[in-house]
Amino acid sequence: MEMNGIPKIVILGAGYSGIMTALRLQKELNYNEADVTLVNKHDYHYFTTQLHMTAAGTDNPENNRVSILKLIDEFKIDFVKSTVVQIRPQDRRVILEDGTLSYDYLVIALGGESETFGIPGLAEYALTIRSINSTRLIREHIEYQFARFKREPHRTDLLTIVVGGAGFTGIEFVGELADRVPELCRQFDVDPSLVKIINIEAAPTVLPGFDPELVEYGMRVLERKGVTFRIGTPIRECTPDGVIVGDGEEIKAATVIWTGGVRGNRLVEEAGIETVRGRVKVDEYLRAPGYDNIFVIGDCSLVFNEEGKPYPPTAQIAVQQGVNCAQNLVACIRNQALKPFRYQHKGTLASLGKGEAIGIAFGRKYRGRTAAWMKKVNDLRYLFVLGGIMLVLRKGRFI
Amino acid sequence: MEMNGIPKIVILGAGYSGIMTALRLQKELNYNEADVTLVNKHDYHYFTTQLHMTAAGTDNPENNRVSILKLIDEFKIDFVKSTVVQIRPQDRRVILEDGTLSYDYLVIALGGESETFGIPGLAEYALTIRSINSTRLIREHIEYQFARFKREPHRTDLLTIVVGGAGFTGIEFVGELADRVPELCRQFDVDPSLVKIINIEAAPTVLPGFDPELVEYGMRVLERKGVTFRIGTPIRECTPDGVIVGDGEEIKAATVIWTGGVRGNRLVEEAGIETVRGRVKVDEYLRAPGYDNIFVIGDCSLVFNEEGKPYPPTAQIAVQQGVNCAQNLVACIRNQALKPFRYQHKGTLASLGKGEAIGIAFGRKYRGRTAAWMKKVNDLRYLFVLGGIMLVLRKGRFI
Repeated sequence: MEMNGIPKIVILGAGYSGIMTALRLQKELNYNEADVTLVNKHDYHYFTTQLHMTAAGTDNPENNRVSILKLIDEFKIDFVKSTVVQIRPQDRRVILEDGTLSYDYLVIALGGESETFGIPGLAEYALTIRSINSTRLIREHIEYQFARFKREPHRTDLLTIVVGGAGFTGIEFVGELADRVPELCRQFDVDPSLVKIINIEAAPTVLPGFDPELVEYGMRVLERKGVTFRIGTPIRECTPDGVIVGDGEEIKAATVIWTGGVRGNRLVEEAGIETVRGRVKVDEYLRAPGYDNIFVIGDCSLVFNEEGKPYPPTAQIAVQQGVNCAQNLVACIRNQALKPFRYQHKGTLASLGKGEAIGIAFGRKYRGRTAAWMKKVNDLRYLFVLGGIMLVLRKGRFI
Repeated sequence: MEMNGIPKIVILGAGYSGIMTALRLQKELNYNEADVTLVNKHDYHYFTTQLHMTAAGTDNPENNRVSILKLIDEFKIDFVKSTVVQIRPQDRRVILEDGTLSYDYLVIALGGESETFGIPGLAEYALTIRSINSTRLIREHIEYQFARFKREPHRTDLLTIVVGGAGFTGIEFVGELADRVPELCRQFDVDPSLVKIINIEAAPTVLPGFDPELVEYGMRVLERKGVTFRIGTPIRECTPDGVIVGDGEEIKAATVIWTGGVRGNRLVEEAGIETVRGRVKVDEYLRAPGYDNIFVIGDCSLVFNEEGKPYPPTAQIAVQQGVNCAQNLVACIRNQALKPFRYQHKGTLASLGKGEAIGIAFGRKYRGRTAAWMKKVNDLRYLFVLGGIMLVLRKGRFI
């Protein structure tokens, strides 16, 4: 690769993987060794794994995001707040909504999109837990339906919330939402017995692939909080009035939240890079096939375990990819050998609302308060990695 | 009038006039002198004059209402939470949603309804500032549009709020809403310059009939806060997309609030009592014409001043009517002479948002902080009349 002057690195996206790449580059690179530009749609990084709280309204969005300029050192990294419109690998350029950027090395960390599997109406009528904006909309949407109900008290469908998908996002959201319902009922003078939270999952179990004993425990906790499960029940269609499930049964609901799937970003497909549902099967150094100057990390990448099964897109793998990607970028620039990416699975914890969680860590099963406490510690740990002790103090949830 | 046993008094409505009648009866009546039942749709009394704050979201609805059972003495007055369906003067009965009540004396204090003057679409698409429920809906509706805007950033109509009518309710609401906008913009990351509050009034001035100098001052204050006035501009139609005004100009707005008129209650018309827009021209003792056992007070009544012009329906006149009505009920029962109702105008104060108001009191004009302070004292005074010092401490706004 020939370059004039110092190499230009462009990072697209400041989610878990992109921000981690930027922060590690900032730490590793020497003065004038590379020109790093971070591009992001918002001027903040947010904590996707905690968006179920913003969506349920149990937490303020401010606790789930941090200004990018408070994380990066502007003397070392340029930040451009813009939306990516097109990636042109052949020209080594990225087209932004309001400009273009050329690069020598590109990091695609644009995050995923909701996958609706072609189910009619989902894209139009269902809300998704994908961003601060989308979850603020969910919170306001639900509150609005409660307020409407007081003017149209025969419409109990206004108080029915359907959550499609019982993966981690779906399960964590219904747990949080069930915690919020008593407060919503007080706020709007609504009889709590009229509120329904229905979690619908096509697979024969919630949290498919997770430890069955913990799944059983989790379902019991959530059912006790008022969640109804409809397992083995595919959503056929989403309408303005609710959903059609199974053999045509209609469930009337003014709120439908779809958590059933994540795919990669359409911009990656449109760039001519080979993808599977928008995700790129990267090489062992996290590079797109055929491009030794394009790294793909986070939800846009597809990494396989030793048995040849893809790792699910999680924050944990994204953060580790960000670190590896930064190391490999530095190695590229210094003409050193690249380091293969090896995922270290540290465990999985799922919140079930206040004071309740389930999970596996250090090869052991945890549940209840202990698991909830471990999840909290884990969240604080991420804040520390991201922004040191000051960020922990500013954004940490300690109770 | 012949009666068996002790006379039965039924009071319909626990707004300003109804609750005042009940409280005064409770104080004046001796043991077993009458059987008093208060009927109200909600189990709380609310402060209609402060609903513009609940609607704008600058105040919690809890500060604008008080539980009826905390105001009345249940050993002296029965309270029935129900909705009146029909009044049958010929049978001396009131039909409730879930029962019937017979009476010897009836007090109709059901409050007014929104008057749309036949403008198409207003009843369907505009929101009104009439109750705790309707104002919670306004607050949630506006917040929801802000949240939607972040997902559809080309739709600036989501950030346009049209307020139809620039009487007291309209003016107080736009003042309060303008105060809320900066907070809403922070909460939803919205550029404040995109938010529009448009107050539309068909009359050639805002606050028609009010002191022109104070009106001029008030408009300047509100314009400085960001309110746009469209005076002398009738609303021709309200649509799902906004309003059509004047000669067919369309103003796109996702939120339309109608404050342009109040009429009496349809139940009064349906009872066969003679009304003008649902309001009853009561006699000097506040009785319905032709019925010496039916009193009509508050927004359902029409009282004329010495020049033969009707007094506008205000909280001030409603409270005074409640006191007079209770006195006359006691007089009826004791076969004493009734006392004619004489309205004592104590002044008029209109809030323009935080720390700003205009008004006339003690024959003088007030504006700015002084007027705002007087309005606050006046609100506290009402709480004191209603529930004594404890209620002032519980619900009073002191800053």
